Amino acid sequence: MPVMAKKKARVCGAIGIDLGGTNVRVGLVSAKGKLIIHHTFLTKQARNRSQLLNLLIDYILLTKREARRKGYAVCGVGLGGPGPIDVERGFVYSFTNIAGWKNTPLKKILEKRTGLPSFIDNDANAMALGEALFGAGKGCRYMLALTLGTGIGGGLVLDGKLFHGSHFSAVEIGHVSVNENGLPCNCGNRGCIETAIGNGYFVRDAEKRLRAGQKSLLRKWIAEGQKLTPRLVERAARKGDRFSQSLWRQAGERLGGALAGWANVLNPERIVIGGGIAGAGNLIFKPMRETLKKKAFPIAAHSVKVIPAKLGVDAGIIGAAALAFSES
Amino acid sequence: MPVMAKKKARVCGAIGIDLGGTNVRVGLVSAKGKLIIHHTFLTKQARNRSQLLNLLIDYILLTKREARRKGYAVCGVGLGGPGPIDVERGFVYSFTNIAGWKNTPLKKILEKRTGLPSFIDNDANAMALGEALFGAGKGCRYMLALTLGTGIGGGLVLDGKLFHGSHFSAVEIGHVSVNENGLPCNCGNRGCIETAIGNGYFVRDAEKRLRAGQKSLLRKWIAEGQKLTPRLVERAARKGDRFSQSLWRQAGERLGGALAGWANVLNPERIVIGGGIAGAGNLIFKPMRETLKKKAFPIAAHSVKVIPAKLGVDAGIIGAAALAFSES
Repeated sequence: MPVMAKKKARVCGAIGIDLGGTNVRVGLVSAKGKLIIHHTFLTKQARNRSQLLNLLIDYILLTKREARRKGYAVCGVGLGGPGPIDVERGFVYSFTNIAGWKNTPLKKILEKRTGLPSFIDNDANAMALGEALFGAGKGCRYMLALTLGTGIGGGLVLDGKLFHGSHFSAVEIGHVSVNENGLPCNCGNRGCIETAIGNGYFVRDAEKRLRAGQKSLLRKWIAEGQKLTPRLVERAARKGDRFSQSLWRQAGERLGGALAGWANVLNPERIVIGGGIAGAGNLIFKPMRETLKKKAFPIAAHSVKVIPAKLGVDAGIIGAAALAFSES
Repeated sequence: MPVMAKKKARVCGAIGIDLGGTNVRVGLVSAKGKLIIHHTFLTKQARNRSQLLNLLIDYILLTKREARRKGYAVCGVGLGGPGPIDVERGFVYSFTNIAGWKNTPLKKILEKRTGLPSFIDNDANAMALGEALFGAGKGCRYMLALTLGTGIGGGLVLDGKLFHGSHFSAVEIGHVSVNENGLPCNCGNRGCIETAIGNGYFVRDAEKRLRAGQKSLLRKWIAEGQKLTPRLVERAARKGDRFSQSLWRQAGERLGGALAGWANVLNPERIVIGGGIAGAGNLIFKPMRETLKKKAFPIAAHSVKVIPAKLGVDAGIIGAAALAFSES
């Protein structure tokens, strides 16, 4: 009687790719959202689209081989990229800060060259899905995620699926005007919430008020050569600097006012907030939650919990893998 | 051989109830959204909830009998009411302007007493669904509907189903602030779009500017005893009155600015606008569309058509019946 070859049972995993203007991260994520393997390389290592595609394919195939050795079967590839994408066709219209990607049928290319089902979405959506399936939104049916960085990105996850809108451009939540007479925004509108609390505006506002003669610990630190960043304002606030605390309070109140409107429209169970600015914790979360409770409809305010994102720096890669788990 | 009784083939219809503070309308609606039979009675005819319930049941059973005679089989009852409702349980939390309805298990009562599957939602949602299935939103997958009246109501229909949010309070779109320093709103927030273009505010704004000495045909008409209403301002605008035209333009631009934000978040294919204020046609639609195109993201702006509602005064009753068609 022939001896049967022992076949090791494999568990399912997905390859996630977090494609950014500075770094590209490629990794294997388990079906429970754990990052098992990961690689990082500099985006600039590739001089054009074709070189970057070759690198992506090499890393996918490398990760696939490593996955097999660790007992994983790769069920698909997910990629989150910085720009507008036709999610159904996996077609990249363009990428911000990565030249030469205009009109790239990325899904088709990846599937042809790796043999793996591939799913493409923008990075904010990927992160939102990651938080919904494996992070701070786990177990809830209606989750809105925001990333507060240079800009403000967002994603809405309904019953475990991303909401894309009719032409895949939904949840551009940084560009809802909260003040029709406010500062002009890059997008052409005025008073977008991004102009009120995006990174750049946060710093600009601080500079303006310091120049106007506000007393603050920040003056000393800046005179000593430190750069004015949200992180520096956070440190000063934690040391009791009133001015810095008031900057955070203002940012929190503004964001809370905007969240009140979105809670009235979307009535989510959770609003998950990540990105640099969210790192300030209660300095921004406390005034934000208070303002939301005060300004939203009672039912909407009581329905929703506003909590920090959980996945941190791995959000992009885990979220990208989540695209494959959600669709495959 | 016994003669088989001839059974007439029946087509499916639903009974729609548009329950308002002034009138109640009950009717039979065909599966194509045509109003076949309808009855109206004054809400005040009933002195309390129990009397109003009895009237509703009587009219439902009457309509059901008439329906049979016309060859329709009634597949269900839908009711749109003025207030917050737990849609899953068909439970009325309260009705605005109709006393005594706090915490009414309306679905249960109707089903027990009529034997027909019943579906309850708020009136703005019912109207939105009616427009989506049978009116201006027909054939589109992502439709946002607005009703501009004393307040501003809204409904979002995705793939033929209403979006309710986690606690059935979604799409309270009149209460998104477009100006954090704007007028205080009844809801507790400031600068809600309702305070910028709701009926009352429209009139208040006109009065204020007339008192400030603005030249206008309206002065003469008001002196002659006519009441200042949006309709009167519309008539003056159509007669070439510059002041009245500017009031409509301002309302259109404000609403267009708000629509730009919602288009960026919801990325709908169509925005359907009904209610009294929308009756002004191009006086408000033109500046609204122009502002939307200017202020929304290009993809979102190009995705969306902003069009008037089609069902007019029958929107409530047809929309209510649509609740039964959509769920049964």
